[in-house]
Amino acid sequence: MSTKTYAAFNETDPLVPHTIERRHLHAKDVFIDIEYCGVCHSDIHTAKGDWGKPSYPVVPGHEIIGRVREVGPEVTKYKVGDLVGVGCMVESCQHCSPCDDGIEQYCENGFTGTYNSKNSKYGGVTYGGYAEHIVVEEDFVLTVPENIDAKAAAPLLCAGITTWSPLRHWNVKSGDKVGIIGLGGLGHMGVKFAKAMGAHVVMITTSEAKGEDAKKLGADEVLISKDVEQLKAHANSFDFLLNTIPVKHDVNPYLNLLKLDKTMCMVGAVEPLDPMHGGLLIMKRRNLAGSLIGGIKETQEMLDFCGEHNIVSDVEMIDIQNINEAYERMIKSDVKYRFVIDIKSLKNA
Amino acid sequence: MSTKTYAAFNETDPLVPHTIERRHLHAKDVFIDIEYCGVCHSDIHTAKGDWGKPSYPVVPGHEIIGRVREVGPEVTKYKVGDLVGVGCMVESCQHCSPCDDGIEQYCENGFTGTYNSKNSKYGGVTYGGYAEHIVVEEDFVLTVPENIDAKAAAPLLCAGITTWSPLRHWNVKSGDKVGIIGLGGLGHMGVKFAKAMGAHVVMITTSEAKGEDAKKLGADEVLISKDVEQLKAHANSFDFLLNTIPVKHDVNPYLNLLKLDKTMCMVGAVEPLDPMHGGLLIMKRRNLAGSLIGGIKETQEMLDFCGEHNIVSDVEMIDIQNINEAYERMIKSDVKYRFVIDIKSLKNA
Repeated sequence: MSTKTYAAFNETDPLVPHTIERRHLHAKDVFIDIEYCGVCHSDIHTAKGDWGKPSYPVVPGHEIIGRVREVGPEVTKYKVGDLVGVGCMVESCQHCSPCDDGIEQYCENGFTGTYNSKNSKYGGVTYGGYAEHIVVEEDFVLTVPENIDAKAAAPLLCAGITTWSPLRHWNVKSGDKVGIIGLGGLGHMGVKFAKAMGAHVVMITTSEAKGEDAKKLGADEVLISKDVEQLKAHANSFDFLLNTIPVKHDVNPYLNLLKLDKTMCMVGAVEPLDPMHGGLLIMKRRNLAGSLIGGIKETQEMLDFCGEHNIVSDVEMIDIQNINEAYERMIKSDVKYRFVIDIKSLKNA
Repeated sequence: MSTKTYAAFNETDPLVPHTIERRHLHAKDVFIDIEYCGVCHSDIHTAKGDWGKPSYPVVPGHEIIGRVREVGPEVTKYKVGDLVGVGCMVESCQHCSPCDDGIEQYCENGFTGTYNSKNSKYGGVTYGGYAEHIVVEEDFVLTVPENIDAKAAAPLLCAGITTWSPLRHWNVKSGDKVGIIGLGGLGHMGVKFAKAMGAHVVMITTSEAKGEDAKKLGADEVLISKDVEQLKAHANSFDFLLNTIPVKHDVNPYLNLLKLDKTMCMVGAVEPLDPMHGGLLIMKRRNLAGSLIGGIKETQEMLDFCGEHNIVSDVEMIDIQNINEAYERMIKSDVKYRFVIDIKSLKNA
């Protein structure tokens, strides 16, 4: 089935309209008419080859919301018309220990990413959600609650689960003092989730303006991290820190905010950090950890939670024709907090 | 009571004989005739002012073994003649949450170190174990099993507990693959303990010779950490890593050895590390942690375990008159694996 998309053909040129062929339906496949697709920083990194040369053409997009148009003969979980989501993964080995534990993002044989991944089962390379349709095995399709705003639910599939998973894994609970470091696509979801989990949420940012924005999202307090006195006042007081900063930075001032035995989890900076002082870990038995997106089961739990608590992302809608401009604005952090493509616009592409 | 010691009077001169006054016995005090005292790198760092200007004169020594000579009227745990130990702490607030949990090393009000610490309760500064006697409240005195070699037990009080505590805290158990990084005073105890706990122990070192030595101590395998092929072969395979390297170093090659969700704990490097790659934590939800000595209760558990399993340190005995030469050799890592002072030699000082 031919599908209209927007694709990158090399590191430097803008994304352009491009028609691909989606695979035909296998027994457990779900064929989805895409309605919305969030725009993640990973889309830019991949399209521009920041993480190594991709398999061009790249059709990015792994924050996908749509409706089921057709299902394979062995599909049991979905029926035509269901509102569904697809996140960062479309396959995994499903027989290793992490897959058995429902954390397919750590699949020992490597999960298949929603785009720019070799598809070991069906051949070829995967194409993502900047497209009219996608075909995905039902085990990697999520149910999206009908009561939440579908277009604002798209970023839950990556920005949402990336923050939800560590907050759950490190057992954030009512009464905990939780710091969310950095306010972007990830950070704004971190604030919303931690607040909904009952935590006392502190936005940790260099920017007074972002601090004010975070309060509107539900943060109880703001810590301006370039203010040494504020850092001192909050030293040794946090039960958990979620560090969403996406670039190289100095983690030392943040580590010193943690209580004894507590953890700061990195979800953004997949790169070398500034030198860290070992004493900050040793003197309070602190932990520095990392976390990668989330498993399918916990993504469903998150979506169900969002349905119950009416949580979605704050989004700015764009037509696919504006994707290249959106990339430029994202690089300047000029978006509150996630662009979402209205896939209807592809009809005119 | 006047007590012969060896003390440092400034950053550069050698330690020299010096007589101090020990406090008189309070109700819960235990008066100990010191028999042996281990020599820890902290002794050198403190005496030489590496960690800030100390309160000279400094009488170092926090790996103390001796016999009870006298007890205060309210002492219930010890009697005259008991073989006892004193480690890195002689007091803590005993009413904060960590103290309640038996992890006095993380006392929120700061524990009192065995030497060069302000003694908030009795005034003055504490003097350590390079001395004929020490007076310590019974709650900070340990029972040393009579069946182990007392002189070789001295380093258990610091090098021992510093490695024991994280191995226990991160629940090292039979069948785990545990890496001990670095073979010195700490590392050689790490090998012995991890082996006795039933782990498959891998000595991780840059030196073939140290690898061979580690095998004699009980290591099952050796990983030469400058060999890229060996690192690759062991990638993602360790359940726990105990990093005893005492200086600035690159943790990245070690982090990559950890399985999903597992921890590397630093116990040596109280200083800035080389830049760490965030992706090594994120991609496998790994943890980098630190740990500081150990609490009184777990130190006693360790000593009891050593009694049952006949574990002591490998030591080189010296007279106190050779302490300055011993310091020079320690700085060159020329000791297997701990110097212990025979305190009898102080009689001639």
